[in-house]
Amino acid sequence: MHILATNDDGIDAPGLLAMAQRLRDLGELTVLAPNRNWSASGHVKTLHRPLRVWEARLADGIHALTTDGAPSDCVALATLGLLDRPVDLVVSGINPLPNLGHDVTYSGTVTAAMEAAIAGLPGIAFSLDGSDRRPEDMDFEPAARVAETIVRRALENDLPQGVFLNVNVPYRSWEDLRGIQVTRQGLRVYRDALVAREDPRGRPYYWIGGEAPSGISEPGTDFGALQEGWVSLTPLQLDLTAADRLETFEAWQGLLG
Amino acid sequence: MHILATNDDGIDAPGLLAMAQRLRDLGELTVLAPNRNWSASGHVKTLHRPLRVWEARLADGIHALTTDGAPSDCVALATLGLLDRPVDLVVSGINPLPNLGHDVTYSGTVTAAMEAAIAGLPGIAFSLDGSDRRPEDMDFEPAARVAETIVRRALENDLPQGVFLNVNVPYRSWEDLRGIQVTRQGLRVYRDALVAREDPRGRPYYWIGGEAPSGISEPGTDFGALQEGWVSLTPLQLDLTAADRLETFEAWQGLLG
Repeated sequence: MHILATNDDGIDAPGLLAMAQRLRDLGELTVLAPNRNWSASGHVKTLHRPLRVWEARLADGIHALTTDGAPSDCVALATLGLLDRPVDLVVSGINPLPNLGHDVTYSGTVTAAMEAAIAGLPGIAFSLDGSDRRPEDMDFEPAARVAETIVRRALENDLPQGVFLNVNVPYRSWEDLRGIQVTRQGLRVYRDALVAREDPRGRPYYWIGGEAPSGISEPGTDFGALQEGWVSLTPLQLDLTAADRLETFEAWQGLLG
Repeated sequence: MHILATNDDGIDAPGLLAMAQRLRDLGELTVLAPNRNWSASGHVKTLHRPLRVWEARLADGIHALTTDGAPSDCVALATLGLLDRPVDLVVSGINPLPNLGHDVTYSGTVTAAMEAAIAGLPGIAFSLDGSDRRPEDMDFEPAARVAETIVRRALENDLPQGVFLNVNVPYRSWEDLRGIQVTRQGLRVYRDALVAREDPRGRPYYWIGGEAPSGISEPGTDFGALQEGWVSLTPLQLDLTAADRLETFEAWQGLLG
């Protein structure tokens, strides 16, 4: 088994190291991650410029590769032939903040798993609900053990075609994690606000700011599971068609004008 | 009615001009578009740097605003309070290439409509299947008339919460368009390839290249409709949960370790 590990926080992120250390015994592991932070960068495919790839080492000396491409580019590079062996499974993370609700397409962590599904491979995104903690102060070890458990299952059971997994882990010790709950995406509550300021020359500029979005913690959702101390595992699909709503649009069908 | 028009090709793109000219009679129209091309940039939310906004004019003198943010940022700026009137509907386009199949999350055009849905507003992405034509040589007028028709309907009929529209128009004269077909997302066939080269100093670099992806033109899909000369209207949803596959994952539920 050949596992590709990537992330969106960059090659030096402690979450990537913790995940790589747990996964390297499950098979051959290739680490290929961006050389900078791509958080909130979304689903990027770099077609307009060439990509560079360099040899690198993680903090404990694990051999790795790094690139000036985005997380999805790491998956594309690896699956299109950069490596001398085909990839069997793609993991992404461990992100130091959760990726929950409907807006996971912002997330480089999740879109790397999505890119794997587009390439016909199983893809799993791992995120830890670190809240306000700094990544360098966080203990990623429980989440890394979760990743090991879930990757083992993914290697034993095929994922359905076009489905990828979004896993979120509450910030708890291994012993205090209640287990895995299969969830659906919950609803976000946004508290974004626009902060308008003036630069030293009196010209306006704007920050997209406000409070971090929260979620509605309904039972069965990713938000609800996480709040109750469960690991949330949400199967996501590539197909965005609002299949249950197609009949709403029957009246839109037909002649133009 | 206050309509926001944006795109991912930048403020000077002919597709934006054609769309704006057709939509300005339907209500108040604000054009706020990026100051550069963001194609294949994905769903971006710019939180790590401030955004600038400048006054601009489209080629025919229509007043507009432009920003150094991404397409989704345009929607966020407009809905979070940059404008003095609330926005009722967001349109994005007209992209000179189609946005079809499962990988529309790459598309700045589509993610701008997605960002509108996240903000609780109707969002519609318009794309024209211009093939190999250069945007400046293309006739966007039939697609702009399609946009006018569909925006009129969207103003008369509310979209379901969490649903946004992805519209693709074949490159035909207005008279030759067969009408609107409500579709689901089709399957992509990827022909990506990695092109490895060496720079003048002998160091490797990589292009994600290959042939443009094609699609499987099944009846009822976006690909199928477009190929037969129909305007494809695909209702998309924010919720990515693989709801029909959740039972597949029952065995994954439970205790860790």
